[in-house]
Amino acid sequence: MCKAVVLGAAPDARFVDLTHEVPAHDVKAGALALVRAVQYLPAGAIVLAVVDPGVGTERRLLGVECEHVTLLGPDNGLLAPAVAMIGGARRVVSLTNEDFHLPAPGATFAGRDVLAPAVGLLASGTDLADLGDTVDAAGLVPGLLSLPQVEDGGAISAEVWWVDRFGNCQLNVGPDDLESLGAKPGGTVEVHIRGTARSARWVTTYADAKPSELVFVVDSYGLLSLALDRRSAADEHGLHTGSAVVLVPPGATAP
Amino acid sequence: MCKAVVLGAAPDARFVDLTHEVPAHDVKAGALALVRAVQYLPAGAIVLAVVDPGVGTERRLLGVECEHVTLLGPDNGLLAPAVAMIGGARRVVSLTNEDFHLPAPGATFAGRDVLAPAVGLLASGTDLADLGDTVDAAGLVPGLLSLPQVEDGGAISAEVWWVDRFGNCQLNVGPDDLESLGAKPGGTVEVHIRGTARSARWVTTYADAKPSELVFVVDSYGLLSLALDRRSAADEHGLHTGSAVVLVPPGATAP
Amino acid sequence: MCKAVVLGAAPDARFVDLTHEVPAHDVKAGALALVRAVQYLPAGAIVLAVVDPGVGTERRLLGVECEHVTLLGPDNGLLAPAVAMIGGARRVVSLTNEDFHLPAPGATFAGRDVLAPAVGLLASGTDLADLGDTVDAAGLVPGLLSLPQVEDGGAISAEVWWVDRFGNCQLNVGPDDLESLGAKPGGTVEVHIRGTARSARWVTTYADAKPSELVFVVDSYGLLSLALDRRSAADEHGLHTGSAVVLVPPGATAP
Repeated sequence: MCKAVVLGAAPDARFVDLTHEVPAHDVKAGALALVRAVQYLPAGAIVLAVVDPGVGTERRLLGVECEHVTLLGPDNGLLAPAVAMIGGARRVVSLTNEDFHLPAPGATFAGRDVLAPAVGLLASGTDLADLGDTVDAAGLVPGLLSLPQVEDGGAISAEVWWVDRFGNCQLNVGPDDLESLGAKPGGTVEVHIRGTARSARWVTTYADAKPSELVFVVDSYGLLSLALDRRSAADEHGLHTGSAVVLVPPGATAP
Repeated sequence: MCKAVVLGAAPDARFVDLTHEVPAHDVKAGALALVRAVQYLPAGAIVLAVVDPGVGTERRLLGVECEHVTLLGPDNGLLAPAVAMIGGARRVVSLTNEDFHLPAPGATFAGRDVLAPAVGLLASGTDLADLGDTVDAAGLVPGLLSLPQVEDGGAISAEVWWVDRFGNCQLNVGPDDLESLGAKPGGTVEVHIRGTARSARWVTTYADAKPSELVFVVDSYGLLSLALDRRSAADEHGLHTGSAVVLVPPGATAP
Repeated sequence: MCKAVVLGAAPDARFVDLTHEVPAHDVKAGALALVRAVQYLPAGAIVLAVVDPGVGTERRLLGVECEHVTLLGPDNGLLAPAVAMIGGARRVVSLTNEDFHLPAPGATFAGRDVLAPAVGLLASGTDLADLGDTVDAAGLVPGLLSLPQVEDGGAISAEVWWVDRFGNCQLNVGPDDLESLGAKPGGTVEVHIRGTARSARWVTTYADAKPSELVFVVDSYGLLSLALDRRSAADEHGLHTGSAVVLVPPGATAP
């Protein structure tokens, strides 16, 4: 319905579905999905993002104009990491101008009744400032992406940020983080999952893993992923989004 | 494949997927999905709808032209409620002109072989009348949407029409139905689910519910929804599409 | 993200999602999905197909130009059956020109970093030959579609190629295969599933089946499907993609 509403105002709009698979109410998973995607969007793209457990409360609905892309969504941390990744906001507008809102027969469905008509207007040339009050870009509710922590003995307390459809587990750790602690591509790192230590080899591609061998791969987003070749590391090691994983590079001690 | 067939005749067509999640053979669920969506479609939209347990039988395939929207689908009750909601049919054509049907190697796949080429032709300017025989609009198979029933003691026998992805349970009851029986926003109503009575408060937004509190919300379609805040009312109370629910407003007696 | 990348180069591109439901790493299921769809694509369509368990290895990424359609994907058998179905390749190019590849922060994501930019360039007029080295069309890795086998006693050893969302089980057997062995529309055929023999009647449409009766239907792709009316033959008979099924026409003997 959101798309139908956009087409009503902007008949030439083209749509790309980034994802419809964010778990209900999981703002952080939505923010991570946006961070992964936003750098690949064409110039002029308008993003409509809704993960909105606070629908109907006082949380604001914002339009955030960045250099190449404009993002619309609730001000609950969903947009902030993507905005930061592409260089920050140039203008932020609270979508308070009710003239363009669709009348809702009951509770407002923010996507359909506020964000979709706003996208349609922006796509057909309306200026963002006409959609509400310009607000301070510094006032965006920040995103809550967890960062890896280097422990005293040189280990890294990390977190699974994303499990893809193959069961590969993307960590919040880049290859530089691991190399700075002495690990090397081709070498092995100790991985602690719920108290059990395993060895994982740092390989270049999934197919380099031996059958059942747990490996690290720098994935297509530049982050380390725990993986098995043609099997699900998530299923076999009980990992899911948010799981804690401790990485102990050679010479480090487990916390 | 339906979209590919449409593009063959109408290269400028734009698509919006209303839903692909209607349970197999559930004509009523499909009709309800159309009723929810049709009012938001832009003028000139053409709807292709297929929930078609009678594929290959004598049931007709129809094109139903309404004031702003044309709907195509099987004549089995799928289209009728949406047609009624947007003011009724101006013209109805049975899509019998086999010149435009795709040759099917076996059983006809109505969506791909009849409806999609019809959509393509309509989208590129062909008149509906060229696609078959004009038939009586009054002859459409009616939809089977259940209406709520007011019982002798003033209670309402209702039905769950839709469970959304958050587990909110939309009833076939509007706020007026409940108010006319003495319930008031902010007050409570007794809800009987499979013989067990519970109290539900009528609140304005999901976030108004206390943890685990069962509430009513007038949802974004203007109907009453049974909901929990950030949890699934469907899962926790064993409700699904078609479940019977009895509402007993203050002063009424349970049937 | 692939679509966003395509739109970056070809802002007027239109997209049709053929499927996102190929099981992980199942090249054969992907090849079958393409075979089913390719004949319905409009002239000039460009197909981006990725089922790619060998990502990161030496397997080639190809652009295969056929008479009306160009297919891009890994050279692992995914494309070959579809290419054969539409008359073979006119030109094949290995997508080795790194000038157009997107820089990948880690492992290459073939769809996003190679195939999507190639689709964008082709859609905006670039010649396929500019995307890499022209290679021998005869060198494509062939697809591994299983063909039915006629056994000595006249039975057919067949395989389930596809289970649709209704649980109908498409076999790799056409009506001609069965008729040439003496079966007739309207008649019955013995079906052996995991050693148990059942009788199945060959009917014209799903609705011709009696309740719980196992039937054959020539489906909308011209292949025989094992089906139940409004119930799932797959669930009730334990069938899935790849299941072996033996058909024993009247007068034949089971192997």
